[in-house]
Amino acid sequence: MSKPIYLGVVGVGGVGTAFLNQLARLPNPPQLVLLARSSLTLLSPTPSYSPAIPAGDWKTASAGASLTTRPALSPEEIAEYLAAAPGRAVLVDNTSDVTLASAYPTFLRKGISIVTPNKKGFSSDISLWREIFAAASEGRALVYHESTVGAGLPVISTLRDLVATGDRVTRIEGVFSGTLSFLFNTFAPVGSSSTAKWSEVVAQAKELGYTEPDPRDDLNGMDVARKLTILARIAGLEVARPDAFPIKSLIPAELADIPSTSEGIQQFMSRLPEFDGQMTEIKESAERAGKVVRYVGSIDVAAGKVNVGLQQFDKDSAIAGLKGSDNIISFYTERYGANPLIVQGAGAGGDVTAMGVTADLLKVLAILN
Amino acid sequence: MSKPIYLGVVGVGGVGTAFLNQLARLPNPPQLVLLARSSLTLLSPTPSYSPAIPAGDWKTASAGASLTTRPALSPEEIAEYLAAAPGRAVLVDNTSDVTLASAYPTFLRKGISIVTPNKKGFSSDISLWREIFAAASEGRALVYHESTVGAGLPVISTLRDLVATGDRVTRIEGVFSGTLSFLFNTFAPVGSSSTAKWSEVVAQAKELGYTEPDPRDDLNGMDVARKLTILARIAGLEVARPDAFPIKSLIPAELADIPSTSEGIQQFMSRLPEFDGQMTEIKESAERAGKVVRYVGSIDVAAGKVNVGLQQFDKDSAIAGLKGSDNIISFYTERYGANPLIVQGAGAGGDVTAMGVTADLLKVLAILN
Repeated sequence: MSKPIYLGVVGVGGVGTAFLNQLARLPNPPQLVLLARSSLTLLSPTPSYSPAIPAGDWKTASAGASLTTRPALSPEEIAEYLAAAPGRAVLVDNTSDVTLASAYPTFLRKGISIVTPNKKGFSSDISLWREIFAAASEGRALVYHESTVGAGLPVISTLRDLVATGDRVTRIEGVFSGTLSFLFNTFAPVGSSSTAKWSEVVAQAKELGYTEPDPRDDLNGMDVARKLTILARIAGLEVARPDAFPIKSLIPAELADIPSTSEGIQQFMSRLPEFDGQMTEIKESAERAGKVVRYVGSIDVAAGKVNVGLQQFDKDSAIAGLKGSDNIISFYTERYGANPLIVQGAGAGGDVTAMGVTADLLKVLAILN
Repeated sequence: MSKPIYLGVVGVGGVGTAFLNQLARLPNPPQLVLLARSSLTLLSPTPSYSPAIPAGDWKTASAGASLTTRPALSPEEIAEYLAAAPGRAVLVDNTSDVTLASAYPTFLRKGISIVTPNKKGFSSDISLWREIFAAASEGRALVYHESTVGAGLPVISTLRDLVATGDRVTRIEGVFSGTLSFLFNTFAPVGSSSTAKWSEVVAQAKELGYTEPDPRDDLNGMDVARKLTILARIAGLEVARPDAFPIKSLIPAELADIPSTSEGIQQFMSRLPEFDGQMTEIKESAERAGKVVRYVGSIDVAAGKVNVGLQQFDKDSAIAGLKGSDNIISFYTERYGANPLIVQGAGAGGDVTAMGVTADLLKVLAILN
């Protein structure tokens, strides 16, 4: 139960760094033989694939002579290097890079398993989704991607377990974006009344670092749409693309074409208050019905419908009661009946996202060993 | 990736029957070669261990001549039979039998993996817990027991992932009994006021089949204590026994010694109204504080303390808002910070308990294959 497994890791951003720290603390870690940043790749020398790169101390080690340093490698070069290792190999993709994700089939056909929080491979055109799982089967390799939805929360694994054991998932709904969760929990909280205007809440979230540098990358709903695409496909729906269903954008049409430069972003933020009246009306319309408005995604499996947008919820519902920037995902199934199986908690952040990646890696290692 | 795996199943009650139905629908099921009820054992003939027992149709098959029928076998005899199979073997224990659970080490040392919803092996004296995991390591066998806590909800797997990836779990709390969840959600609901007396709610739950035949088996808190013992041990606490910490019993002392015969149970139910005043006072005391009372279990990992009993909760808390007979489990950890990772949903019932068993079995098969 302990043949060495060879590990390649791409990406040393927030999630990548947290992952390397967790990897360094595992009792029986795999051999880290490749660590790629955008401009530089650190490799264990061939043909021995030894010594391994110290996960917790790769910066110091990269200066030493025992490891090979190369410029950025293409996905194909990385796949070739890992495939030639003297044992099973795993690629951990901690980027959000579409080029690398598009190359997963190349890795998988060579028998290299994939562990990743990168949504792109699973939420782009359905042809890539199909190619990934066909290649995994062909190469007898594994694909684990828990952190593509809800970070480290047990969302993908729970849905796969429900499906694999023969439950019929009828509906999935929830709050899938930490940023939009924060915006609506703050703009339209349950219990206390808030007088903050929508543009003020967006500005506050931006200052706290809860939004992307350009808040429109959260407000356009595409991140949520990609997550819904992944869950819908696992539940059995053939969603062609992440924009193949209605997605409510919270970007006023008049502000959509302002360029995404730092000047443009400033212009967007300064013009956003012009549209506060629209959001206030949406909020007050929910209040008149005794409800609160939330930005949610939902999948109606039976009807084959996916939807991302605003919806009103009872004040005592779990979605209305969400705190901070938490995610919540409710699975309605035949076995669970009227009360869904619910998973809730932080759905973003380096440490919890990395936790999903590390937990996936441990499962892959258990199977490969 | 497809050596045959040999499966022995003990127990054909509610969970056992639901499990066999799920097993029968798996695309690549393991070979079911042993099916044991309390009085009868159905076996595939040795030495070929073939034909397999049809999981979905074992009743009909047991009348045929191709299978061997034996009286009840001892755990040791079952272990010997499975160990002699021409491949890796798995025992699925769908009973709540302490004798079988005490024999897990015998199975594991012979390399037979265990999948079970039976709490007894993991919540009895800590010596058995230690022996089970030492034997698993010695026999290179696996032990999966998701459904021992919260039925099919991802509770055990989530906690194991948190621990294995290096998170520090500081506190676990929740409602761990479907029966006690129903009793308190009905007796002291949030939002609407209820005038039902405690004894009336217990009688209603008994009629609906939500309690054990003797409701005192739910009211004594031992089922919750066993679940807490399991979680605390996974979180790193060396809980000596399931009664090694404070457990609030909801059985009035005066009624504890009435025998558990059907006459005694009737007597218990008819005398329970005498004590309604005590429960009303507990409920109203919470109301005066603007809260509701719930029966919860909690583990304070840092302080090394486990507790099972009544506690007051804010009306907008997730625990207060629980519906029906749902469970809720909150994991407070270093990485998740102030807002816990929460899992919620049905924590009892044949189908959802069996789902946890089947999902565990699929994981074990993936590793053994």
